[in-house]
Amino acid sequence: MIQGFDPRTGSPAGEAVAATADSEVDAVVAAAAAVSGAWGSTAPAERAVILTAVAAALDARSAELAALADTETALGGARLTGEVARTTGQLRLFAEVLRDGGFLEVALTRGGAVGGTPDLRRINRPVGPVAVFAASNFPFAFSVAGGDTASALAAGCPVIVKAHEGHPRTAVLTGQVVSEALAGAGGPDGVFGVVHGVEAGVRLLRHPAIAAAGFTGSARGGLALQQICAERAVPIPFFGEMGSVNPVVVLPEAAASRAEAIAAGYAASLTLGVGQFCTNPGLLFVPADSGVPAGAGLLDAIAAAVSVSRGGPMLSARIHDGFVAAAAELAEHPAVKLLATGLPGEGPWPGTPQVFHASLGEFAAGLPGLAQERFGPVGLVISYQDVGELVPVLARLGGNLTGCIHLDGSARGDVVAAEQVMEVFGRTAGRVVFNGWPTGVAVTWAQHHGGPWPATTAPAYTSVGAAAIRRWLVPVVYQDCPPELLPPGLRPRSRPRLESSSA
Amino acid sequence: MIQGFDPRTGSPAGEAVAATADSEVDAVVAAAAAVSGAWGSTAPAERAVILTAVAAALDARSAELAALADTETALGGARLTGEVARTTGQLRLFAEVLRDGGFLEVALTRGGAVGGTPDLRRINRPVGPVAVFAASNFPFAFSVAGGDTASALAAGCPVIVKAHEGHPRTAVLTGQVVSEALAGAGGPDGVFGVVHGVEAGVRLLRHPAIAAAGFTGSARGGLALQQICAERAVPIPFFGEMGSVNPVVVLPEAAASRAEAIAAGYAASLTLGVGQFCTNPGLLFVPADSGVPAGAGLLDAIAAAVSVSRGGPMLSARIHDGFVAAAAELAEHPAVKLLATGLPGEGPWPGTPQVFHASLGEFAAGLPGLAQERFGPVGLVISYQDVGELVPVLARLGGNLTGCIHLDGSARGDVVAAEQVMEVFGRTAGRVVFNGWPTGVAVTWAQHHGGPWPATTAPAYTSVGAAAIRRWLVPVVYQDCPPELLPPGLRPRSRPRLESSSA
Repeated sequence: MIQGFDPRTGSPAGEAVAATADSEVDAVVAAAAAVSGAWGSTAPAERAVILTAVAAALDARSAELAALADTETALGGARLTGEVARTTGQLRLFAEVLRDGGFLEVALTRGGAVGGTPDLRRINRPVGPVAVFAASNFPFAFSVAGGDTASALAAGCPVIVKAHEGHPRTAVLTGQVVSEALAGAGGPDGVFGVVHGVEAGVRLLRHPAIAAAGFTGSARGGLALQQICAERAVPIPFFGEMGSVNPVVVLPEAAASRAEAIAAGYAASLTLGVGQFCTNPGLLFVPADSGVPAGAGLLDAIAAAVSVSRGGPMLSARIHDGFVAAAAELAEHPAVKLLATGLPGEGPWPGTPQVFHASLGEFAAGLPGLAQERFGPVGLVISYQDVGELVPVLARLGGNLTGCIHLDGSARGDVVAAEQVMEVFGRTAGRVVFNGWPTGVAVTWAQHHGGPWPATTAPAYTSVGAAAIRRWLVPVVYQDCPPELLPPGLRPRSRPRLESSSA
Repeated sequence: MIQGFDPRTGSPAGEAVAATADSEVDAVVAAAAAVSGAWGSTAPAERAVILTAVAAALDARSAELAALADTETALGGARLTGEVARTTGQLRLFAEVLRDGGFLEVALTRGGAVGGTPDLRRINRPVGPVAVFAASNFPFAFSVAGGDTASALAAGCPVIVKAHEGHPRTAVLTGQVVSEALAGAGGPDGVFGVVHGVEAGVRLLRHPAIAAAGFTGSARGGLALQQICAERAVPIPFFGEMGSVNPVVVLPEAAASRAEAIAAGYAASLTLGVGQFCTNPGLLFVPADSGVPAGAGLLDAIAAAVSVSRGGPMLSARIHDGFVAAAAELAEHPAVKLLATGLPGEGPWPGTPQVFHASLGEFAAGLPGLAQERFGPVGLVISYQDVGELVPVLARLGGNLTGCIHLDGSARGDVVAAEQVMEVFGRTAGRVVFNGWPTGVAVTWAQHHGGPWPATTAPAYTSVGAAAIRRWLVPVVYQDCPPELLPPGLRPRSRPRLESSSA
C-alpha cells in the first residue's frame, strides 16, 4: 500500500492506495503496446483535439485537484491551482505543436537531383510506449498529467505513468480525470495508464514493450533507473532530469547599485516552494567586501532578507531528512559559516531557510563536495575578489540546468565580466539567465530545460517547452516509395520542405 | 606498432605505424580542449570555407590516397576513388549545412508574449571535443576524414580520430592531408588529430575533456565503447552505428514478374565490397514455390546469379575468420540448406559468396540466432507461404538500418501486402526502401542512416546526411539577455524564427 501523508501534521492523508501488482503492470503495458500503432497513426490534429479535451477536463476539476494535492504536499492552494493551470497550459502547448506540424521534421531529397540519387522522404515517428516517472515536487506539472505525459501523448506514444509515492491520491484522481477525458474525446483504450509503487516502476521499465522513459527527480534515483534501461535486453533511451545547484553570479556594479533588490530576489527564489525545485539557487557568488563599497552591503542585505524569510513544511519525512543532513554537513564544514537563518516552517518536517557563507578560495578547496545539490531552502554564498579568479572555479562545477548573471548593463566592467561568465555558463548550463533567478521555467516554444551531466542524462533534450516532444520521436526515411504508399505526413499535398531548408 | 596488410597477399603493406603513446594521446586531447572554445565560436561561414578547403585538398590527392588504401584494403581503385569523392562530397554537404544555418535551430519566444514570460532565445552550441572511431570497411567515408569528422568539425567541435588498425598508412596520409589543409585554411592548431591503437582509443574515450563519441563498426566493439562512456566520471553521449541484417521482402507479384532482375540485384548487393557493408542484405524473404508460378523461378534465378558472382579478398584475417565461422554455423544449422556458392576471391582471406535457404517456419524457430548479422557475402533466403505469416516474424527481428520491399505496384495484392510490411519496417528500420537494395546510402539532406537497437545505440540520430551534425550539438537558451551580450547567431539581425514556427 502507498500511504500519503499531510506534511502539516505528519498524519496519513486519506486512505492508502494499493501498489500495482505485477500482473496489473503487465496488463497495462500490454494494452499500451496493443494500441501503440493505432495511436501513433492518428492524425496530429486529432491528437491535438484530444489533448485539449484533457486540458479542459483538468481545468474543470482544478479546485478539487488542488485541494486534494494540498493535503498530500502542503504546497498551498494558490501554488497548486497555478500548477494545474500550468499543466493544462502544457497540454495546450503540445496541441499547438501538433497543429504546427514542424515536430515531424519532414525533409525531402528529390530523386535524381544529384546523379542517380534516390527519392528520400524523412519523417519522425513515435518511438512507442513511454514510461514516465513522476516527480515529488510538482504534483501536477511533472506528474501524472505533466509535461512528459503531454509531450509523449502528443508524439503519438501511449504513456504509462509511475506515480510518485508522495501524492498517491492526487495521482489517482488526476489519472481518473485524464482517462475519462481521453475516452470521452475518442482516445483509444490503453493509451494511458498509471501504476503505483517502486516495484511496479521497475517492472514497468524492464518491460520489453516500453520504448523510452522520462524521469524527473534525484540524481540517485535517476542514475538507478538509467542503469536499468541500459541493462535491458534491448536498451532504451532514458531522459532523466535530475536537478542541479544553479549557480548565480552577482557582478560588482550590480551588487553596488541594487543590493537590496538582489538580496530580496535571492531569498524569494531560495525559499520558493520550500526550496524544493530543481532550479533552486544553491550557489550564489557575490563580490567580496573589499572591492566595491556596497559589497559588504549585499552580504548584510542577504542576511537580512533571509532572516525574515519563512520556511514551510517539506514534502515528506525523507526529503526533510535529506535536507537536514545536507544543511548539517554544510554547517560542520570548517570553511563554511552560517550567514542567516529564516523563520521555521510548520509541521513535523519543517524546511527552515539557512544560508551559509564561504570565500571563493575555501569553496574551491572544498570542491566537488561543497557544490553538491542540497534539496531544500539551503544556500551557500561565496565571496570572490575578482571575476578573473571566479571564472575557473565556475568551470569546475558540473553541468547545471541554469546559470544566472546579475549585472549592471550600463557599467562596462560588469558587461566585460558577464561575457567571461557567459562563456562558462554557455557550455555548462542549459539556460543562462540575466538579472533574474533560476526558479520559474516558462513553458514556451523556445524553452530549454536541460543541461550537461549531472543535470540531465541527455543534454541535447529538454523536459519543458515545445522541443520536449523530440524525446519521443525517431526518424524514418522512405526511399523511392510509391506515392500511394507514403505515410500521410509525407504525401505530396503536405508540401514537405525542400532540400535547401530541410536541415 | 600497427601493421597494415595487403589482403591480396597477406603480406605487410608498407611500414608499420607507431601506436600512440599515452602521453601523446593526452597531448592531442589537451590541444583539442584548448582550442575548443575558439573553434566553436568561429562563424559557421568560416568553418564552411575551411571544410571546403579540406575537401579540395583530399580531391587533389585522390589518386594517391586511393592507391595507398588499395594496398591495405584491396577494395579496388574504382571503389576507392569513388569513396574519396563521396568523402569530399560529405565535407561539402556540411559546408552547405553551415551556410544554410538551420542546424543552429534558433528559436525565440518574445518576452511578455504571454503574461510575464521572459524573453527566451535558444541556439545550438557545439558539445565539445569529439572522439571518432574509424571503421574498417570505409577507409575514407567512415574513417579519418569521414562523415563523423566532417559533421563534428562543422558543428564546431575539435575532432580526434582513433584510426582503424586495418588501414593505418591510409589513416596517416589522410590525417596529414587534412591537417595541412586545415592549417592552410586558417583552422586553429589542435582542432584535429589522429591516434593509433586500441589502447590509445580507450584512453581517448576516457579522457575528461572528450565530450561525445562516434563509432561505426561491430556490435561487440560498439557496446564495449558505449560501456566505457557510461562508466566515466562524467558520462558522455555515444553514437554507435553497429550494422544490421537488413531484411529484404520480395512480394509475390514482384517475384512473378521480374525474378531475373531481382536475383541479379540481390547477388550484386550481397557481394558488393565483398559483402563488407553494414547495409548488406543478410536476410531475403521470398514467396514459396507453391503460390505463384514464378516463385520457383526466383529461387532458381537467385541460385544462378549467386553461382556466377565473384568473391574477393576480405579486409583482414580477423574479418575473414568471422565470416568463415558465421557461414559455417549457418551451414551446420539443421534447418538450413546451401542454395548456391559463388566464385572464390583471391588471396589468403577470400570472401566467397554463399547463400543458404530455409523455410519461414524453420527460420522463425531458429530466432534470434538465425537473424544475427554475418559480416561478409553470406545470405539467408527464407521462403514464406503468405504475407500474413511473414509479418509477425519480421516483427521479431531486432532493429535494422534498412528494410527493403520489392513489389509490383500495379498488382493490388502486392500493394496491400507492402502496407503490412511497411507497418513493421516503419518502426523497426531507419530506412524503408522500395524496389531497391540496402547497399548504397545517399549523402543528402533528407537521409537517415540509423535505426533501433541493435542497429545503433541512439535511434534518433543518423551518421549519414545533413542531420548527422545534430549528434554534436546541444541547445542553450538565453533568458532576458542584453542584446549586446547575445551570441552572434542570436543577435536581432540574424532574424531568429518566430514563435509559431520554432519547433
